[in-house]
Amino acid sequence: MRPGARRTVTPIDGGITAPRGFRAAGVACGIKATGRLDLSILAADRAVPAAAIFTTNQAKAAPVLVSQEHLTWSEGAAHLIVTNSGCANACTGPAGLADAREMTLLAANRVGCGPSHVLVASTGVIGVNLKMEALRSGIPNAMASLSREGHADAARAIMTTDPFPKEYAVEVDTAQGTFRVGGMCKGSGMIEPRMATMLAYLTTDAAVDALLLRRALVEACRYTFNAITVDGESSTNDCVFALASGDSGVAIDEELYTALFEGFRAVALELSLGIVRGGEGATKLVAVTVSGASSPDEAWTAARVIANSPLVKTAIHGGDPNWGRLVAAAGRSGVTFFLDHAMVRIGSLVLFSDGLPHDHLAPAAADYLQGKEIEIEVNVGAGGSGRATMYTCDLSAEYVKINAEYRT
Amino acid sequence: MRPGARRTVTPIDGGITAPRGFRAAGVACGIKATGRLDLSILAADRAVPAAAIFTTNQAKAAPVLVSQEHLTWSEGAAHLIVTNSGCANACTGPAGLADAREMTLLAANRVGCGPSHVLVASTGVIGVNLKMEALRSGIPNAMASLSREGHADAARAIMTTDPFPKEYAVEVDTAQGTFRVGGMCKGSGMIEPRMATMLAYLTTDAAVDALLLRRALVEACRYTFNAITVDGESSTNDCVFALASGDSGVAIDEELYTALFEGFRAVALELSLGIVRGGEGATKLVAVTVSGASSPDEAWTAARVIANSPLVKTAIHGGDPNWGRLVAAAGRSGVTFFLDHAMVRIGSLVLFSDGLPHDHLAPAAADYLQGKEIEIEVNVGAGGSGRATMYTCDLSAEYVKINAEYRT
Repeated sequence: MRPGARRTVTPIDGGITAPRGFRAAGVACGIKATGRLDLSILAADRAVPAAAIFTTNQAKAAPVLVSQEHLTWSEGAAHLIVTNSGCANACTGPAGLADAREMTLLAANRVGCGPSHVLVASTGVIGVNLKMEALRSGIPNAMASLSREGHADAARAIMTTDPFPKEYAVEVDTAQGTFRVGGMCKGSGMIEPRMATMLAYLTTDAAVDALLLRRALVEACRYTFNAITVDGESSTNDCVFALASGDSGVAIDEELYTALFEGFRAVALELSLGIVRGGEGATKLVAVTVSGASSPDEAWTAARVIANSPLVKTAIHGGDPNWGRLVAAAGRSGVTFFLDHAMVRIGSLVLFSDGLPHDHLAPAAADYLQGKEIEIEVNVGAGGSGRATMYTCDLSAEYVKINAEYRT
Repeated sequence: MRPGARRTVTPIDGGITAPRGFRAAGVACGIKATGRLDLSILAADRAVPAAAIFTTNQAKAAPVLVSQEHLTWSEGAAHLIVTNSGCANACTGPAGLADAREMTLLAANRVGCGPSHVLVASTGVIGVNLKMEALRSGIPNAMASLSREGHADAARAIMTTDPFPKEYAVEVDTAQGTFRVGGMCKGSGMIEPRMATMLAYLTTDAAVDALLLRRALVEACRYTFNAITVDGESSTNDCVFALASGDSGVAIDEELYTALFEGFRAVALELSLGIVRGGEGATKLVAVTVSGASSPDEAWTAARVIANSPLVKTAIHGGDPNWGRLVAAAGRSGVTFFLDHAMVRIGSLVLFSDGLPHDHLAPAAADYLQGKEIEIEVNVGAGGSGRATMYTCDLSAEYVKINAEYRT
């Protein structure tokens, strides 16, 4: 066994500021009419290696465009991330871009860095301009209240209608020493006009350069933030950020890369499952595994189609062990599928295999579906080793209600 | 103007048997526990040119596999189409295949043709075997009651939980004479276990060979049956059939092809809009047009994503002129999209253009959305001439209710 391979991952308190070298704050600056927390700042003690993944939606919001630009100009470094909730600053044209740039400048001025070392994110109502007066006083206030204890307020200040805040942290012990990974995210709550938006932030006090940090972020997201769906929509504002302070003194090289990946994955998985658990109208967390696919890509494709199928999601909501809908969704997903070799498992119960149903197990499967955490496997019968797991929630009438209400 | 180009298309009564050379019947043979009509036969007076389009779902039901086989063996000819409702004969293994074959044989024996000249379709509950005793007496009974007047019963006998039967016919006048096109379909009603299944049948008394018939069917379906969505699901049993008796004496050549296409398209459009109007939980029919795309394929892709977006469909249900969701759906559809040149129109109201909202029109758009038939256009700003229209319905809590009920 190589030395770098020995490691343990242990949950700890402290959220986004659990790793050394970070402070955070969450304040109410007046963007939300309710007076709730609506401005969140995450600060490293100096400009540190940074990486980010942005929405692939081509209708990118102004803060997404500005953060992409800044990360390019800074060659993967950031000092601060400024986030407001209550307004997405999306589809706001040149004025929106100017507002997002001013947000970074307002924060940069308080620490004396260049604005390209400040990243920015917004979430909330689309097509409405930011209340810049609120931010011109709010950003200095938030900067003045940065602290190691600010993680809980910071996690609340990025929420829109999320039913609960989502933060998590772990300590990773390796032969070369101990480092921490922290995180927070928001998502799947809706705000007028109810774009499901996801924002996530990861910190670590491992010492890692921007390229390796990006690799760990991309690979961890593949199995976590990119493996969840509530309704198959991807918003104009989605971002995942990562910052690495290096303050643990543990330097991540190829040897220790797996430890960083596992720390990132542990935090990102817990946060992303929180998004699904708090999905609009969700009553169940469902893990959909596709196996037997001719490639990993085909497994992801089929898992994504099944996890987004309204017929599958309503059946789970109704506690119906409807293997026929799972077979039909896999069959229409476009991947190699052989009905005669396919298999459907709900919990531990195999309801369909080798082209034939086992309906005597349906009552037991219906009982299993009364639970809050559901596991489903569909083997597509292609005889390959392709396997993927997507996390989704059930589809309830409450989802329709939340999203059909007229925006005022 | 070429002689073949002069034509008029006029709606007429008579449904699937309006064209000369066809008879139909619908009977109750005992597959549905309710005692409702559940066996439908469409008969040409002899084996005639036939074409069909089958589901692309790889979990094809037994009757789909048998009909595909028969159409290949017969080189595009059919005498009868036998359809049962109440049982999909899908995921039923070798026994299901044997049952579908026996259905064709039972009908073939009554007219003395080979079974390969009989096509077969089933719709209803998945994973359950057909009640063959019911069909062994039902098919001879239905064959004995075939008539020109049987079209209405035949259209009812293919229904599952469709809220209404769907039939339509037109007369096409050309310089070379008059021919008719008739049709019936079922779809989007649900039956336990609630697979949305679509079956459609077109007849014509034009004289047309199987290849040209197939071309007209494929091209007409592109703008009709393949341009509708209720929930993005495609079933294990979808089929569209076409039969041409030739009894009008009007021979379709390249010159007259457009007349046949227009007749097919008129009937298929009316039938397919009926499916969307009767979609599960639907309260509105929505035509989603994407324009300005860099190719027709990109227009279809974007229109399909928008028409299946749960956020768009719930907004329409709630009467919310939420152009942000339309922009976001187009932006994530994967086609070339330029926000600064995009445009969103709801009814006649342009709510977003050149990267900026026109929210003063939102109240008028909200009024417009109170109607039952909604038109939406999204120009994706790519500057191309690609254009496509998909037909969809709104997403209501009733959809969830229908599909979440436990199957008994």
